Amino acid sequence: MNSSIIRYVLGQVLKVEAMLLLLPCLIALIYQEQEGFAYLFVLICSLIVGIAATHKKPSNYVFYLKEGCVATSLSWIFLSIVGALPFVLTGEIPSFTDALFETISGFTTTGTSILSDVEALSKCNLFWRSFTHWIGGMGVLVFIMAILPLSGGSNINLLRAESPGPSVGKLVPKMKYTAQLLYGIYFGMTFIQVILLLFGNMSLFDSLTTAFGTAGTGGFGIKNDSFMSYSPYIQWVVTIFMILFGVNFNAYYFILLKQWKKIFKIEEVRCYFLIILASTGIIFANILHMFSNAATALRHAAFQVASIITTTGFSSVDFDKWPETSKTILVLLMFIGACAGSTGGGIKVSRFIILFKTVLKELHSYIHPRSVKKIKMDGKPVEHEVVRSINVYFITFIILFVASVFAVSLEGNGMVTSFTAVAATINNIGPGLELAGPTQNFSFFTPLSKYVMMFDMLAGRLELFPLLILLHPGVWKDFFKKRVQK
Amino acid sequence: MNSSIIRYVLGQVLKVEAMLLLLPCLIALIYQEQEGFAYLFVLICSLIVGIAATHKKPSNYVFYLKEGCVATSLSWIFLSIVGALPFVLTGEIPSFTDALFETISGFTTTGTSILSDVEALSKCNLFWRSFTHWIGGMGVLVFIMAILPLSGGSNINLLRAESPGPSVGKLVPKMKYTAQLLYGIYFGMTFIQVILLLFGNMSLFDSLTTAFGTAGTGGFGIKNDSFMSYSPYIQWVVTIFMILFGVNFNAYYFILLKQWKKIFKIEEVRCYFLIILASTGIIFANILHMFSNAATALRHAAFQVASIITTTGFSSVDFDKWPETSKTILVLLMFIGACAGSTGGGIKVSRFIILFKTVLKELHSYIHPRSVKKIKMDGKPVEHEVVRSINVYFITFIILFVASVFAVSLEGNGMVTSFTAVAATINNIGPGLELAGPTQNFSFFTPLSKYVMMFDMLAGRLELFPLLILLHPGVWKDFFKKRVQK
Repeated sequence: MNSSIIRYVLGQVLKVEAMLLLLPCLIALIYQEQEGFAYLFVLICSLIVGIAATHKKPSNYVFYLKEGCVATSLSWIFLSIVGALPFVLTGEIPSFTDALFETISGFTTTGTSILSDVEALSKCNLFWRSFTHWIGGMGVLVFIMAILPLSGGSNINLLRAESPGPSVGKLVPKMKYTAQLLYGIYFGMTFIQVILLLFGNMSLFDSLTTAFGTAGTGGFGIKNDSFMSYSPYIQWVVTIFMILFGVNFNAYYFILLKQWKKIFKIEEVRCYFLIILASTGIIFANILHMFSNAATALRHAAFQVASIITTTGFSSVDFDKWPETSKTILVLLMFIGACAGSTGGGIKVSRFIILFKTVLKELHSYIHPRSVKKIKMDGKPVEHEVVRSINVYFITFIILFVASVFAVSLEGNGMVTSFTAVAATINNIGPGLELAGPTQNFSFFTPLSKYVMMFDMLAGRLELFPLLILLHPGVWKDFFKKRVQK
Repeated sequence: MNSSIIRYVLGQVLKVEAMLLLLPCLIALIYQEQEGFAYLFVLICSLIVGIAATHKKPSNYVFYLKEGCVATSLSWIFLSIVGALPFVLTGEIPSFTDALFETISGFTTTGTSILSDVEALSKCNLFWRSFTHWIGGMGVLVFIMAILPLSGGSNINLLRAESPGPSVGKLVPKMKYTAQLLYGIYFGMTFIQVILLLFGNMSLFDSLTTAFGTAGTGGFGIKNDSFMSYSPYIQWVVTIFMILFGVNFNAYYFILLKQWKKIFKIEEVRCYFLIILASTGIIFANILHMFSNAATALRHAAFQVASIITTTGFSSVDFDKWPETSKTILVLLMFIGACAGSTGGGIKVSRFIILFKTVLKELHSYIHPRSVKKIKMDGKPVEHEVVRSINVYFITFIILFVASVFAVSLEGNGMVTSFTAVAATINNIGPGLELAGPTQNFSFFTPLSKYVMMFDMLAGRLELFPLLILLHPGVWKDFFKKRVQK
């Protein structure tokens, strides 16, 4: 294990976080809030530790998958611990466990909150809370790659560990330019959304935080009722941008290249839109009687479907009161999730396409045992290794999910609460149903359940294995052995 | 497709069913019930059709996997339709849908009932209901193989399609002797249980039907409160025999060979007992406060754990009233199921062992990417193909499960009801929770939900693929094409 490169990456992450903490400081300055000093203090500490850790260059830049995974997981854990400190220091979330839960929920773009009264927060805390979504959406290591000259060619292992979805699209040969391109698209789309929200008479502060929550498919709102009291125009803008941020970013790259036809050839994108249309249609019919007119019912159906499938987690209405059929569809959408290569969570549409094709292929093999048929995606055959790893991913996901539901159920809440709370966190969504529903918050869970769900949020965001290998004793044996040898 | 052999197998199945229907006729004669005429009528019809279908020998005895699957699935469907007729004709279950549900639930050893008052049934109907468990437990095609000279060596494909679990243990080289051996063990153990129940002052009729329900890991009781009012002795006997019938039958073969040590070398058997011990222990601690003494709490904990993990579905207490932790454990046990090669359902312990090992292997490969490590079971490496097919099985199971929950949720019962009703049927258990709980029955579901659950019961019993390929258009195209050519 090359532990010096891990130390170096963690140092870089802390330096970047210090830089990012400048923004809430600025907000505090604008609104004349003394909570800003907490941010300044954490900023300075983070910077000092970061500089100390990166002062000595790593002995070598060799970066294998193992190092990539460990560096990524530890980066996210450090990022969250440091990011939680201002909440504790300002006294607005006095419990460290709760502050850490809120911060992990932010960075992993989950959006599950332990706060009952969001509006009581100071502006700088509100801003930082939403800003963590924006940072976490694209991934902080992608950001580092975009701006820092990290190393030669092996940091694909970093990107692979952090990017959502089974396939990392190397858009352009050099990883650095891919990262820059991704952040460029991300920044541009966020900007357009802010402008559109401003047109809807939203304040700049509200527009920025809303756009951060949408772009990262996060879900933290700045109102206690999420989006229930906003105008239909604002709700539609947010609906559309949630859907757009759930699309595979490769599609936007094709737009930049003006290769429009290629977008609709992406099977995952077609399937994603089909699921959204079908779900919205069924839910619309199912909830029509609950609203005064069809337009309102359609708006709420579309908002909730977009919010859940993209794993954002905003709500325009208390969907826990909807009929069973609609709730069941929403729970299913939680697991499907957005496209790979987007900022969304969940298992991902492309994985489900491959899983379905795997089952069909198996059935086919019962009928024609001798035929050799390869699974195809976008017209191209998919490597066996990819299919195998998606199968294993799914199995691991289910096992982790079931184990978590069991752990959370120990505190004795209802089965629907435990089930949907874990589903909402492991898939990085936000609200679940019943006690974990959209008008509730997660503060009542015991610390054990909270730590289980923090683990699940990180596992979901980092696609399981990078985080799970931290539990493997082999990693630590290796880590310390090499340090001693040195 | 060799459709003549399928016709021939179906004919044999009907002849065997006619033979089996003699027993309820006999019971009706003993108890002087005129319902017996319904059985006699169905017996004669079944015999005539069976003889007609087997009159012409098949053009050839070639039997591929495809034919094996289609023959097995159709056999079980025909068996159930014919078996349902007496219930309708006697007027005791007037609706054909309900009668079919009850019969499929019987043959698949599920034990889910649509009856609210079991005790109102005539003795011959009660007997037939429990007897279907005993027939379905071992498999009717295994029975045919045990008694009929079907063909040369290719009927392994029949046994493979019908036997529970990933690996068909060819105990002895000739399939026929394997089948006879299995039925011998099955018969012997049922006999011992009947004797032990008689010692507990149970009547012969009650002992027989109870033993049928236990041996097949079925779950139909002959009392409205299942086993709640029986003596502790009876409850313990049933507990122990449920556990024994959930063990891989290979273990009993080793006992016959007096190779005792080999039993404890079977990883699945060790793991199965470990899960039972651990679950009973946790539930015991969790429910202790609900009972007057520890012995009672232990008895109920053990009974319910044994009943659910072996997918029998008897109940000695209304576990829907237990604390969440205990209920969650029971729901988990529903999916784990019994050992492969037993009469139990569920996903099977050995599949879970392989799934866990698959995940561990994946984690290992992140740390040591170049190491080639094979998954081992009972000390022997497991073929990649076996691992792959278990992965695909699990994925297919989850997809079918989720689709079924969705379909059942359309009628708008609570999420826990829909979830556990499907879990209880697809895993061939019996009762679920809430509206589908142990003191309830399934008659309130709509016909759509009932047919979905009938499909799930058959799919669960036949290990998914044999039934699922009936939905594949390729099978039917093939079926009719070959018929026309002839």
